[in-house]
Amino acid sequence: MPKNQQQIQLARRPKGVPAHDDFRFETIAVPEPQDGEVLVKTSYVSVDPYMRGRMQDTKSYVEPFALDEAITGGVIAEVLTDGNKLKKGDIVIGNLAWQEYSAVNESALRKLDTDIAPASAYLGILGMTGLTAYFGLLDIGRPKKGETVVVSGAAGAVGSTVGQIAKIKGARVVGIAGSDEKIAYLKEELQFDEAINYKTADDIQKALEQACPDGVDVYFDNVGGPISDAVINLLNEFARIPVCGAISSYNTESEEEDMGPRVQPKLIKTKALMQGFIVGDYADRFSEGAKQLAEWLKDGKLHYEETITEGFSHIPDAFLGLFKGENKGKQIIKVSDPS
Amino acid sequence: MPKNQQQIQLARRPKGVPAHDDFRFETIAVPEPQDGEVLVKTSYVSVDPYMRGRMQDTKSYVEPFALDEAITGGVIAEVLTDGNKLKKGDIVIGNLAWQEYSAVNESALRKLDTDIAPASAYLGILGMTGLTAYFGLLDIGRPKKGETVVVSGAAGAVGSTVGQIAKIKGARVVGIAGSDEKIAYLKEELQFDEAINYKTADDIQKALEQACPDGVDVYFDNVGGPISDAVINLLNEFARIPVCGAISSYNTESEEEDMGPRVQPKLIKTKALMQGFIVGDYADRFSEGAKQLAEWLKDGKLHYEETITEGFSHIPDAFLGLFKGENKGKQIIKVSDPS
Repeated sequence: MPKNQQQIQLARRPKGVPAHDDFRFETIAVPEPQDGEVLVKTSYVSVDPYMRGRMQDTKSYVEPFALDEAITGGVIAEVLTDGNKLKKGDIVIGNLAWQEYSAVNESALRKLDTDIAPASAYLGILGMTGLTAYFGLLDIGRPKKGETVVVSGAAGAVGSTVGQIAKIKGARVVGIAGSDEKIAYLKEELQFDEAINYKTADDIQKALEQACPDGVDVYFDNVGGPISDAVINLLNEFARIPVCGAISSYNTESEEEDMGPRVQPKLIKTKALMQGFIVGDYADRFSEGAKQLAEWLKDGKLHYEETITEGFSHIPDAFLGLFKGENKGKQIIKVSDPS
Repeated sequence: MPKNQQQIQLARRPKGVPAHDDFRFETIAVPEPQDGEVLVKTSYVSVDPYMRGRMQDTKSYVEPFALDEAITGGVIAEVLTDGNKLKKGDIVIGNLAWQEYSAVNESALRKLDTDIAPASAYLGILGMTGLTAYFGLLDIGRPKKGETVVVSGAAGAVGSTVGQIAKIKGARVVGIAGSDEKIAYLKEELQFDEAINYKTADDIQKALEQACPDGVDVYFDNVGGPISDAVINLLNEFARIPVCGAISSYNTESEEEDMGPRVQPKLIKTKALMQGFIVGDYADRFSEGAKQLAEWLKDGKLHYEETITEGFSHIPDAFLGLFKGENKGKQIIKVSDPS
């Protein structure tokens, strides 16, 4: 066991697009577990777009990260010391600091069943991203058989799951993503009905009209911005818009810059519903969602991709890559192999 | 009985703010009632902001008015000829042409009980405007005791009813309107907790912050535009926004001109819901709403104002006045006295 380890702290609050200098690598001691705690070794770290919001100190749905303290997030780890319930060798998940070793209260960790899926899946398809897709689409979007579901950020971890669940429910699914490789993945591997590359489409509005000849009944909005403006022009009566992410606006320096056509006239014309949500709103139904996702996964109805970057030192790179569309599926950093 | 009468037709589709020249007065024959029809004499005509949408031939929630044909809307009339069910002298309501006399199938008319309230009330508080307030606020807004409800267009027919129902439900009510006279009406006559004159406020955002120290739980949006932008900045978690009107955008020449801050980042932060609706969505529950409104009216819990303009020839003026904020409460035109 080493005496010291690396920790990643928030060095400053980003202005616009986050940069390397917003992060600081600090050498700290490997902690001694106290009563009720176990020592864990970090195996996988999750980086997610919502973390950009936590880097700011504005009012949001989660507490901002503190300056000069460790950044925290979804982490899978291996238990190194026996506790009251957990045993050495158990693989666990928790909201932990970005560091190599942590001493954590057992109650803050959940033991994983790695027979159902590899441990890393619990950061994605069987974790927050899968549950985000599940509840946002089914509880707010409520797709019916034969309806048209459009999803933006479609090749991302949430978006790709949304589209597949919509297909399971019998909807026609149109994905929007930013590279030809992603488009091929959506159409060929995930069997989306249509997929649009917004970066190469001459006119995103026309491309959407062609892809959605019967209009749009559900729009799962992962991006906000001009892409969403174009989809909102095609809403059918009583359309539903789960608003999950606005990645296109996360990096503007102030919200005032994120201007577009106001939605009110369109919502009135179509009697449509837009609702923001976060997966935490559904905490009391997580077991329902996790069970269904695991079942679909076992039955081969759900596929997922992971982009696994190796090495603790590459966590900031992997996070910054989210905003450049570098990842396909869930972005994970492998810090160490569970033994 | 005269042989001829006046009818108001749509002469052209307005560009931007409607003007007198968009209307045409035409002399037509007073019709003979056919089998199943009665002849009625127009008593009161309703003019409503939503009609601006029908003057355009764009896709909307109601059929556009046809060019060179009569404009239609809510009308109260006196029956002049006995029918199968209706009798001479009955006072009825229907969706009728803007003309002095009409021959109408009895099934398209509903006989009014003028013991509960004067006939004109059925175009307002006991009609579509009252029901719009009732269903939009209670079904989408769902105000709870102690919550803050903001309503824009607060001195209008819908807005003033929304605020009063919110008070009945125990909410704190803040109205936004456009003249000191309207502000005095809201605070003194309708007992709103706060009212803001958006035309004289130095900074609408600051004025709203002062009027809503605990944030905004329900925003009944009658106007869209910059006023709504400011309210949306103050949403609390899980806020609800019934989107009823966007009068500020009705008269822009194209929707592209109605630009403002995109709502997605704010909806995500607050997990808020925005939903467009029209009263027709609740047609199967009209009797529930009408019964409750009549009860509150009888118990003195609801007050309403009417701006009654006299004379058939002034219908276009009264309609155009809606967009200048000239009316207080429901705008009605009295065409003839029911005998």
